[in-house]
Formats: sequence, C-alpha cells, structure tokens
Amino acid sequence: MPDELLAVHLQELRRGTVVVAALATLSTPTYGYALLEQLNEAGFPVDGNTLYPLLRRLEKQGLLTSEWNTEESRPRKFYRVSPDGKALLQQLLEEWHALHASIEKLR
Amino acid sequence: MPDELLAVHLQELRRGTVVVAALATLSTPTYGYALLEQLNEAGFPVDGNTLYPLLRRLEKQGLLTSEWNTEESRPRKFYRVSPDGKALLQQLLEEWHALHASIEKLR
Repeated sequence: MPDELLAVHLQELRRGTVVVAALATLSTPTYGYALLEQLNEAGFPVDGNTLYPLLRRLEKQGLLTSEWNTEESRPRKFYRVSPDGKALLQQLLEEWHALHASIEKLR
Repeated sequence: MPDELLAVHLQELRRGTVVVAALATLSTPTYGYALLEQLNEAGFPVDGNTLYPLLRRLEKQGLLTSEWNTEESRPRKFYRVSPDGKALLQQLLEEWHALHASIEKLR
C-alpha cells in the first residue's frame, strides 16, 4: 500500500478531531502558534497550513472570538471559544463518543 | 448556532470513520445496499450518495475487491476487503485509539 494512500486516510480520520481539540483547548485564550504546539504535544498532528485557516474559519462561523494582544513587542491575535463554540464542542464530543462506541462494537 | 453549521462539523467528524466501518464490515463480502443498512444500524449515519462513491474509490485504491453475484434475479456487486485494506484498517484503528486517548485527555 503506497504511503500517500495511508496519509490520505489518516488525514481524513484526523480532520474533524482538530476542530474538537481546538475548541476544547481555546477555553483559555491562546495565539495560533502556541495552540499549534499544544495540539501537537497533546497528540493531534496538525501543521500551520491547516490550523491557521481553520482558526479563521471557526472565527467567521462565530465559534471563536479573537482579540489582539499588543502588550508584547510582537502583536499577537489571541483566540478563545465563544458560547456557540462551547455548545458545538459538547455536541461534537457526544458524537465522538457515539462513534467510538460503534467502532468498538465492530471489532 | 445554525443547524447547517452543526451538520458540517458532524459530517467532518464522521467522514473518516465511515472508511474504518466499511473496511471492518467488509471482512464478509457484502453488496452496497446491505452494507449501508449494516452501517446505519451500527451507528454510522451514512447515505448512498456518500457510501457508493466511497466503495468505488476504495476499490480503485486496491483496498476492496469486488465480484458480481448473478445467482439471484438481480445481479449484485459484492465488495470485500483486500489484504491492503486489512492493513490500512489496522493502522486506522491504531490512529483512532491514539486520537481517542488525546481527546479524553483534553476534557
């Protein structure tokens, strides 16, 4: 089996979980790069080309809010989860557990 | 939060799991519609517009093989998982468990 084929299917499996992980982590306001590092450490392999557009998309969808922090030498945009984002997170976690139970049953 | 937004994110979360479920279920040769019913019963909400193209894609990728059964009045194409498909399934299940562990840690 070609490596690219494995990569495509792994990517597909991970895609939705990055949203779950980002929404859960952003209960604490965090800027993009710090979030990237936190997600990778937590076991969600994601790179900037995926995460940064995702953060903008989630903000546009009203699931995140953002605020510029200009206190340090380099201004940084801090994201945090909105009430809608929290509500979505709860529903995604419920779905995740249902999917997990279904997958366990398959084996 | 608009319903469509929830639907999009749920869909994204489910997408990769349909591949896992299909590969696992097709250790027994099964035709498309019967698989659709089995997946829905097992808790993987998927419709024909998603599943049938997916089966053709997985066959093209060498992860499934197919055979026509013409013994009944209506010929049906039976799919089953290939050795490559079984290998991929194992890797996707490992990834799933890693993702599950990471999500549990987030909460």
